[in-house]
Parts: sequence; structure tokens; C-alpha cells
Amino acid sequence: MRTVFWENNQVKMIDQRILPGRFEIVSYSDHKSVAKAITDMVVRGAPAIGAAAAFGLALAGFESRSSSNRELLVDLQVAATTLKAARPTAVNLAWALDRILNNVKMKEGRSADELRQFVLDEAQRIADEDVEVNKRMAEHGAALINDGDTIIHHCNTGALATVDWGTALGVIRTAHEQGKNIHVLVDETRPRLQGARLTAWELEQYGIPYEIISDNMSGYFLKAGKAQKVFFGADRVAANGDVANKIGTYMLSLAAHDNGVPAYSVVPTSTVDLSLANGDLIPIEERDPEEVLGLEFHGERVAPIEAEARNIAFDVTPNRLITGIVTENGVVYPPFEVNLRKAVLGK
Amino acid sequence: MRTVFWENNQVKMIDQRILPGRFEIVSYSDHKSVAKAITDMVVRGAPAIGAAAAFGLALAGFESRSSSNRELLVDLQVAATTLKAARPTAVNLAWALDRILNNVKMKEGRSADELRQFVLDEAQRIADEDVEVNKRMAEHGAALINDGDTIIHHCNTGALATVDWGTALGVIRTAHEQGKNIHVLVDETRPRLQGARLTAWELEQYGIPYEIISDNMSGYFLKAGKAQKVFFGADRVAANGDVANKIGTYMLSLAAHDNGVPAYSVVPTSTVDLSLANGDLIPIEERDPEEVLGLEFHGERVAPIEAEARNIAFDVTPNRLITGIVTENGVVYPPFEVNLRKAVLGK
Repeated sequence: MRTVFWENNQVKMIDQRILPGRFEIVSYSDHKSVAKAITDMVVRGAPAIGAAAAFGLALAGFESRSSSNRELLVDLQVAATTLKAARPTAVNLAWALDRILNNVKMKEGRSADELRQFVLDEAQRIADEDVEVNKRMAEHGAALINDGDTIIHHCNTGALATVDWGTALGVIRTAHEQGKNIHVLVDETRPRLQGARLTAWELEQYGIPYEIISDNMSGYFLKAGKAQKVFFGADRVAANGDVANKIGTYMLSLAAHDNGVPAYSVVPTSTVDLSLANGDLIPIEERDPEEVLGLEFHGERVAPIEAEARNIAFDVTPNRLITGIVTENGVVYPPFEVNLRKAVLGK
Repeated sequence: MRTVFWENNQVKMIDQRILPGRFEIVSYSDHKSVAKAITDMVVRGAPAIGAAAAFGLALAGFESRSSSNRELLVDLQVAATTLKAARPTAVNLAWALDRILNNVKMKEGRSADELRQFVLDEAQRIADEDVEVNKRMAEHGAALINDGDTIIHHCNTGALATVDWGTALGVIRTAHEQGKNIHVLVDETRPRLQGARLTAWELEQYGIPYEIISDNMSGYFLKAGKAQKVFFGADRVAANGDVANKIGTYMLSLAAHDNGVPAYSVVPTSTVDLSLANGDLIPIEERDPEEVLGLEFHGERVAPIEAEARNIAFDVTPNRLITGIVTENGVVYPPFEVNLRKAVLGK
């Protein structure tokens, strides 16, 4: 089953807010509901929200009553603006929508209904390609993993973060399927705990041995020589190889670097934003403090009821801390300014 | 009110497991219950468990039916072994018990009952001195804080971690009382959340502005230039200035160092263990995985029911990442091998 898919003229998604306790599919019939689902993190993970937004744009096409292709294009552009605003950091959202809109613009002679169908077909292609791209990344990345490795993994980058298979977790799955004995230390990934909830749930299903740790423990394992690799995804990679990813990636990469342990970001080239020279230019989302404050333990809320909190959703890891960036076109090594561009442009 | 105190022939403690939801005092009449309370973290914080163990030894004296001072000494030594085993990392436990036992041994001519009273008096002195020592540390440390500073603080090092006032949080309290405008970013401090539960609760009472962050967010604030100082306590400091402290301190210090932000450990000299050349020799406690796995959100357990976890309670921050160690005898700077010994021996 895919994380996000089109069925019966609806966008359907696995509801990731309630896993692992409950497994439910939710359906959306209009693009504004899809945008809200992305904001609320029913679906999350850079590639998955790219595909979700693409299908959301397809819904917008069918919602539009325009009979001219020009008017339809305006409606699609308005819908794309709404969808792009759902979450600011991951570039895949904008990438998917811009890809569709640019292709629609090139089809001037078509009828509005032909364009509606084209938007849906293109969204479907984006979803299908994501699965294929993930498999190619996984092959490239699995070659970096040795039999017996313990791997620290941050956030969720598996099937749930993509249309299927996964980015960093896809690499780990492929290494496991190749028969390598690996052990995963799963960063729980505060505040939303995608590691403890989603990555642990996926690893259970794949039969890959793992243990959950709190994010602040990874430094201990790295310093003790008990982890040989660090893998994570990315929400946006700048042209110089700076990596915006789930909050905590910077401190994890710093600890890996301090102990000579390689740290890899696994991303489709659609996550690379060549328009931004460096990571300081990447917008960083700040979310509802309640995601930090709402923790309970033995049924009781942890923080004082009056407490305030900050909830920064992403950080930027400078390229000097990144060993390599695994893409569908191969593993990219420094100097990233040069090599990343080559990988993205397919040269 | 003190965190741990002697009253009506009992050891009494604020139950830190249930704060901030409920405030309760628990009482113990035998040393084995005190040891269990330390293991279960009814009381925690290196100086506080030192005082709790000292009072526990006083209980052991009154529990003993020995009428000879030699037999009483053996009973006290057995009880000290039990109390020391309650938690392995913080050295204050052993420091307090050894101080009392060494002084008892020097009092050969006294009766058993005189020794019993002496153990209690010495425990009371340890508790009283802790408060006085904290106030002196706080004065030294507050001089390091500038008006307008935002300070990242890890774990709980306040009145609750000591007999009263606090170590790192004591510094922050004193700076606040001196009229400096300060803002504290409170690491929630997974897995037991002493920051979100206890430090936030204390800061509410002192009227010091703060915001809770998840531990993995501190790197973001440091990198963005939004924090000017990092303060934490310690559970044991080796002779070379390596600092064993609550898990996460290493990664926090690394992020501070990477951004040129000073990081200070605030400790009474009783937390310095000159017998250990470096931090690799400090025993590191691993606790029940349920402390990691038992989180709930909206009433539902976060991790899959089958999930396993690791729960490393402390890490060691190498001395190269520590800007200064604030003691009651002044702020100690590198080279720590030389200057820490001077500060501990009072020269």
C-alpha cells in the first residue's frame, strides 16, 4: 500500500497522526482539505507531501468550473499557492506543483478537460517516479552499509515519508534485504516523535532489529564507538550541500563528525534546491508549542500548565558535517557546490 | 523548604516524580527505603542525593542494635554499600558517605550512641553546607551572565537538585535577583523530562522568563546566535575536567562549542572526583527502557507495544568543550588538570 494515492476521484492517505496505535485511511475531495492535511501532518515527509500536493492540485482541477484552459490555469495557480503555503521548509511541495504547472502551460491548445486529466496524470507520474527513484537511491546507499553496522537514523524517512519504500530508511531496508546484518538506533525525534512512532512501526514490519533512543543519546553511542553510520533524509538541500532536515539533525551530524562517523543525507534530486546558494536561505517552520508541551507520562501532563515553549521544526546542517548526499543519480561527495549540480542535472 | 531534610527521626523529601502536577512530601524510616527512593528518583540531582544518602546513613545508625562502636561501624559500612549502589554515576553519594565514615573512624573512644548522634550531626552539616556552597557558586557564576542574556539550561539543577538554591539554576536565580534581565531556554531533558517538569516549575516560582524546548532544538538557537550562554550541573567531574552529566550534555556542549558560545558546568567541589584521571573512567548508569518508551500523547502510548529501547542516563563531555567549571571556590578555567585540583584542595 502507498502512503498517498488517488482512488475514486479522491486523494487518500494513511493517517500518520494516529500510528502506531491505529491504522486508518483518510480521503479528501478538495484541495483545501489536502493543504490542511499537510499542515496538520496527516501526511509528512518531503517526498510524500510533494505527491500529496500534486494530487491536491488534480483535485483543484476538477473543483474548478472553468471551461477555458486559461481560466483553469488561474484556478490551478491559486490552488497551488494554497498548497505551497501548507508547509514552508520542504521544497518538494513547490517542486511538484511547479513541475505540473509548467507542463500545463506548455499545452496551450488543449481543452480544459484535457488539462484536468493531464494534471492528474502528471500527479500520478510524480507518485510513480518517487517509488522508482527511492529504489535507485536505496541501491546506491546500501553499498555504503557494511555487514554488522549499527546505524543511527533520525525522524521517519521510510515508506510513510514517501509514496513508498523510503529515502534513508529505504537504504536501510535494501541493505537488510541484501542480507546484511544491521541494527538501527532509532532517534525518537522530538517533538512529534516520528522515530518512536513511525520508524519503529516500519522496522517492526520489515523485521529489522532496532532500539529506540531519545535524540540526546545518539552522542553517547557515537562517542562510545557503538554506531558506524548515521543516515537521515532532508526537506531541502541547498546548492552548496547544506541540509535542512527535521530538528536535531544538526546536533546529530555534529556528534557524528566529532567522532569520525560518516553522516549521509538521502534525497531525491527533487529535494535539492539549486536556486538557494546556502542553507541560511531556507525558510524554517515554527509550529504549535503544544507539540512540545502536550507530552504525558502515566496519564499526567509533563510540563506546568502555565509553561510556554518554542517549537522549531527543522534545522540546517552545514555541508562540512555531511559526508555524502545519496541521490537516485549516485552518491554525491564534496565539493558539493560542483558535484550536487551535476547530480541534479543528470550529468 | 528544603528538598531533603531530617524531621521527627525520619528522612523527608519532596517527591520529584509527581511534580509539577502534585506537591507531596514523603518520609522514610530506614536506610533501605532511602536507597530505593534514590534509585527510583524520588530525589535526584547529585548534591541532593548526597544529602539524602547522608541522612539515610543516620537512619542506619539508629536502625543498628549494636552497642559497641566497632559493631556499629560495620553496620554503617554495610548500609553505606547499599546506599552507594543506589545510583552509580553521581559521586556525591559516595563522597558524603565516605566523609561521614572517615570521621566516625576517627572517634574511637566514643560510645555507640554518641556515634549515632555524630552521624546525624554530620549529615545535617553536609546538608547545611550544601546550601551555603550553592550560594557561593551562584555568586561566582552570576558574574559570568550579562544583562539581556538568553541561557540554555539542561536538566534540573535548581533547589530540587540540591538541598536548596541550586547549582547551575542557582547561578541563574542569583543573576535574576541581581536585576539582570535573562531568558532561559529550558531543555526538556528526555527521557525523564526534568527540565520540562522541574526546572520549568522552579522558574515559574522565581518569576524568571523561560521557554521549554526539546533537547534537539538547542543547536538551532545556538547556531542562530539566539543564546549567549549554556549552563548545566554535573554528576561527576574527573580530574582533567571531563564532565559526566545528564544525557544530552555532550551534544549540547558540542553545539555551543561549534558556535563559540561558552558552556559552564556548575558544581560543588564535592562533585569533583580527583581519583579519576579522565571521564572515560566514570561509570555510566543505564536505566529502565520504559522511561523512554512510556511517553503518551493525547492519552495514547507513543511507541509500538513491541518496541525496545536503550536508556543511557548520563554522558561525558570532554574538557575541550567546557569553557569553565564554576565551584564554590571560584570559576576554574583550563588547564583543568592543574586548576581543578587547586580549586578542590582550596589553594
